[in-house]
Amino acid sequence: MVQLLGRSTYHFLQPPVILASAAAGGKMERDGPLGKWFDYIDEDARFGEESWEKAENRMQQLALKTALQKAGLRKTDLNLLFAGDLLNQCTGSSYGLRGFMVPYLGIYGACSTMAEGLLMAAVYTGAGLAKAAGAVTSSHFCTAERQYRFPLEYGCQRPPTAQWTATSAGAVIIGENDGNSAGKVTIVHACAGIIQDGSVRDANNMGAAMAPAAACLLRRYFRESGTGPRDYDRIFTGDLGAVGSELLCQLLERDHIQISDRHEDCGLLLYDRKKQDVHAGGSGCGCSAGVLNGHILPEMRAGRLHDVLFAATGALLSPTMVQQGETIPGIAHLVHLRMEQGGNNGCSSNC
Amino acid sequence: MVQLLGRSTYHFLQPPVILASAAAGGKMERDGPLGKWFDYIDEDARFGEESWEKAENRMQQLALKTALQKAGLRKTDLNLLFAGDLLNQCTGSSYGLRGFMVPYLGIYGACSTMAEGLLMAAVYTGAGLAKAAGAVTSSHFCTAERQYRFPLEYGCQRPPTAQWTATSAGAVIIGENDGNSAGKVTIVHACAGIIQDGSVRDANNMGAAMAPAAACLLRRYFRESGTGPRDYDRIFTGDLGAVGSELLCQLLERDHIQISDRHEDCGLLLYDRKKQDVHAGGSGCGCSAGVLNGHILPEMRAGRLHDVLFAATGALLSPTMVQQGETIPGIAHLVHLRMEQGGNNGCSSNC
Repeated sequence: MVQLLGRSTYHFLQPPVILASAAAGGKMERDGPLGKWFDYIDEDARFGEESWEKAENRMQQLALKTALQKAGLRKTDLNLLFAGDLLNQCTGSSYGLRGFMVPYLGIYGACSTMAEGLLMAAVYTGAGLAKAAGAVTSSHFCTAERQYRFPLEYGCQRPPTAQWTATSAGAVIIGENDGNSAGKVTIVHACAGIIQDGSVRDANNMGAAMAPAAACLLRRYFRESGTGPRDYDRIFTGDLGAVGSELLCQLLERDHIQISDRHEDCGLLLYDRKKQDVHAGGSGCGCSAGVLNGHILPEMRAGRLHDVLFAATGALLSPTMVQQGETIPGIAHLVHLRMEQGGNNGCSSNC
Repeated sequence: MVQLLGRSTYHFLQPPVILASAAAGGKMERDGPLGKWFDYIDEDARFGEESWEKAENRMQQLALKTALQKAGLRKTDLNLLFAGDLLNQCTGSSYGLRGFMVPYLGIYGACSTMAEGLLMAAVYTGAGLAKAAGAVTSSHFCTAERQYRFPLEYGCQRPPTAQWTATSAGAVIIGENDGNSAGKVTIVHACAGIIQDGSVRDANNMGAAMAPAAACLLRRYFRESGTGPRDYDRIFTGDLGAVGSELLCQLLERDHIQISDRHEDCGLLLYDRKKQDVHAGGSGCGCSAGVLNGHILPEMRAGRLHDVLFAATGALLSPTMVQQGETIPGIAHLVHLRMEQGGNNGCSSNC
């Protein structure tokens, strides 16, 4: 049912189906170009909670609950959850999702978590080990800033290469393919990435730290799958931002792989950089999750995109390792999404 | 090739094979009853590095390198690595393993990580998505104490319910079953657990926080697999320690499930509690990994144990959530290990 191509590319012979997705976000995300696609917005990013961390837990709950409702499923219909986030010990996920009582496999891929979760959920549903599985992740500007960099109250200046951690949670429900996937988005391939360390030491330049991992992943994926950039309408990376996106295209051009005519980055789509002060773009696990829910899937469902690569990227740093003078390794994983023939499913809403 | 039983129990029709395992540890681990089974011991637990965190990275490298050597494999033979640890952002794994250049799927299950990694590696090799995959994890007493509790220099007193975080890394190489598994240990079943929160708030009583998750897992696994405690020579949990082990047996007895005559806990096997000052026992990702490598697998290979459940347990807390007054959720995952007929493989060494 699933075929191994090369070293770590999976070809789903009965491609698992994206049954539903949902996202929750804050004011910055509402004010961006994808704001209308968020299922739930909280004005002050507290989500009714007394701490930022508890707000992040609540966001994950809201995203998963909404995705389940859209899919017409109960939590008992889920065989598995794959979830992770940026908080120490991934507590956004474990505390956020403990109430669902679904078998839970915790993952950590930093900002690549949405792609890692989709890959895993596709493997389990594609191999007949789950009828339905969820991939959930989140990030929160306020929890990330105080954990990774400085307390917000300090009012630290940010360099131009810095990115803005999205306050956003996304949940995607993947179901097994029952032979009736026409008009639905499916996962046709997935590829697990290799950690790459480009010797970047600047914790305010995540894009540069992650670009080598994205380049390595795409290079390997094209080779292992026997496809090329022209087989895809769009190649989305996330969240390289302005600096990392340029680097990625340069790195691939060295190997004569040209993606710049169809490449877009989630970090450059979530916010309007002319109006919103996000420097080099958006970042965080919730950035690519929000763009998947608020741009990629709607464009596919509207019939404007058919074959898409979604390659989320993560910087595998901790403040402790950076303080000890270490460089910052990056990782990236991808899924190949396809809008199955049967065309526009007639649904222009965010279903 | 892999069958789904119930909600999240996997039955491997061609059971993946444990090709090799290895562990690295410190002085406390050497002085315990399993000391002779560690492949690498460092007297001062620095492993030649200048910080505890870098020492933990080095331990993972040593464990994986040794396991690969024992299996007669090169790193290029590995399709995948599943790895995680207790450090913030799992940097023990990402920094420790970045040099291997193997496709990497980061996981987070706190001290249940060894079982989560084995489950995942078995799923991918069992479903034909990897010829060989590694499961790697670690913990380090000094990194864990300063991150989760107090700086070592503070000399904080520990209550009797506290456990001692093992300085240990373990790596297991899983290979697909080529039909010639006689005399080898295989993974026959695996079960993914559900997060359980028993409302424990004491960060010095992890055993009590994890026991409900272990009880829930075993209860579900027996039901879904159609087996019972008597089908197993031994049921290992890890790392519940003295307090959690007693609670687990009590919780299961309420449901008329009797495991106490065949239950052992990794937290009570790694150290000699009469001679070593570890209070309620060992803990940390490296605890169950060390006991798997230094006790369970050798006993199976010597023909003294045939069918074994390895159910590692994890407490999904972070200091931040505990400081915010939150309770501590727990998780547990298991694999059913079997020494395939063909008996003792004639090898009494730690291969």
